[in-house]
Amino acid sequence: MTSAFPIGVFDSGVGGLTVLNAMRDLMPAEDYIYLGDRARLPYGNKSPATIVRYACRAVSKLLEMQPLKLLVAACNTVSAVALPHLRELRRDLPVLGVVEPGADAACAASVTGRIAVIATESTVRGQAYVRAVLQRRPDAQVRSAACPLFVPLVEDAWTEGPLVEGIAARYLDPLFADPNDAPDCLVLGCTHYPLLVGAIRAVIGPNPRIVDSAAATAAAARNLLKNARILRPESGPRGMVRFLTTDDPAGFARAGSLFPGEPIAEADVTLVDL
Amino acid sequence: MTSAFPIGVFDSGVGGLTVLNAMRDLMPAEDYIYLGDRARLPYGNKSPATIVRYACRAVSKLLEMQPLKLLVAACNTVSAVALPHLRELRRDLPVLGVVEPGADAACAASVTGRIAVIATESTVRGQAYVRAVLQRRPDAQVRSAACPLFVPLVEDAWTEGPLVEGIAARYLDPLFADPNDAPDCLVLGCTHYPLLVGAIRAVIGPNPRIVDSAAATAAAARNLLKNARILRPESGPRGMVRFLTTDDPAGFARAGSLFPGEPIAEADVTLVDL
Repeated sequence: MTSAFPIGVFDSGVGGLTVLNAMRDLMPAEDYIYLGDRARLPYGNKSPATIVRYACRAVSKLLEMQPLKLLVAACNTVSAVALPHLRELRRDLPVLGVVEPGADAACAASVTGRIAVIATESTVRGQAYVRAVLQRRPDAQVRSAACPLFVPLVEDAWTEGPLVEGIAARYLDPLFADPNDAPDCLVLGCTHYPLLVGAIRAVIGPNPRIVDSAAATAAAARNLLKNARILRPESGPRGMVRFLTTDDPAGFARAGSLFPGEPIAEADVTLVDL
Repeated sequence: MTSAFPIGVFDSGVGGLTVLNAMRDLMPAEDYIYLGDRARLPYGNKSPATIVRYACRAVSKLLEMQPLKLLVAACNTVSAVALPHLRELRRDLPVLGVVEPGADAACAASVTGRIAVIATESTVRGQAYVRAVLQRRPDAQVRSAACPLFVPLVEDAWTEGPLVEGIAARYLDPLFADPNDAPDCLVLGCTHYPLLVGAIRAVIGPNPRIVDSAAATAAAARNLLKNARILRPESGPRGMVRFLTTDDPAGFARAGSLFPGEPIAEADVTLVDL
């Protein structure tokens, strides 16, 4: 493992760009290779066995193409379900998910210990966030809800207005309904959800803290590389990003450009067949 | 090809159950084998090349497992994009999609020739309905819109109420906005959409005729089998249905049970690996 290798970022689609952008802000000198498995997207409503199979196949392909110094599973569903399996693919490769850093950030942000998590159906069903929070803070009260329309809304670039707020209220009201028992912290347990933060804030009001695991994951990645002495000096030139996808590059560039960060041109994206 | 073989029905998920049910109503004595490729669902926002690859792989697997007398592509996206490729898999197997029967029904239903089509993003982009309608009725005016939230709404069993009507209005209002130029016929170009017919009707009012290709496809299938003399006598005993899926059978049974027709138990569904 050398500092010369890039950081690999794996996601089912473009949502992981929120994590990539947070890492580039924090570690601009690193090179990155990002694989979005858009052909099989979304992972969030598949069974655990299928998620594990697809994630392992995609990451194996990535490792064949390029040695990495760190793999970041920038997808909550993959982080919640497939991390141990990804760690078995190459024993000497550190693998970081977004759930553990997100749980760290939630425990730090919450005063009352009442923490709400919104995520995809399979992340919620697998209860990875609940387990990760309770490990850190056994007295916490964690409640969660799946928001199956949020990813299609974001991918359709439809992120604000009364209908979007109405949809958000349908998911969030049950979590925040009782004012005497309301969470003081909401974890956005899916990388698409930060783009809906306006509508979410309109529903939950100004008080609860919103935790988005992208920034927490970037900080954890930096710590990991620093401790392993393979972090590049921050004074170095800005690193490169290479984008790979399993479905058409134009679609990746179009969807990816909805996310904050540098615009992505179709020519920057390489099609890989899995 | 003998009448003893079952009819194969292929869909990306459970939406094709609307077509299966229409066929069972019309041809109860037939046996059916239904394959829903839920692991790769949805097809509707993938590129044509990926849709063709996945559909051909799934149907090849189905044909390995069971000889068929007819294959029905009960998915609008597959019908719109992959039909010629499916026909090449086995030259002597008749293959029927849902687009051509749907276009027949639309041309029969419309008086003014102003026809609206709603469908998934890739069906709309491929313009298969526009071509099929214009082939039959060159003077027709066809307009279409993609409704990317409709499938997640149906799969979430959220099919009515003001928010659903608001979402439907966002997609349908632009098609029906001008009262002097409004379509008199709306084609539901996705097998999930019939479950939203209440919300759709609330937006477009009572006048436009709504065409759902399931019934039209069942009638076309019956004609095809009758002309080939491989239709079973209707007086025979009720046929069997076998369900196959590429993701977990419990999820298939759960989602499938949202659709009209006989309830589907997890034990009735077999997992196939593709």
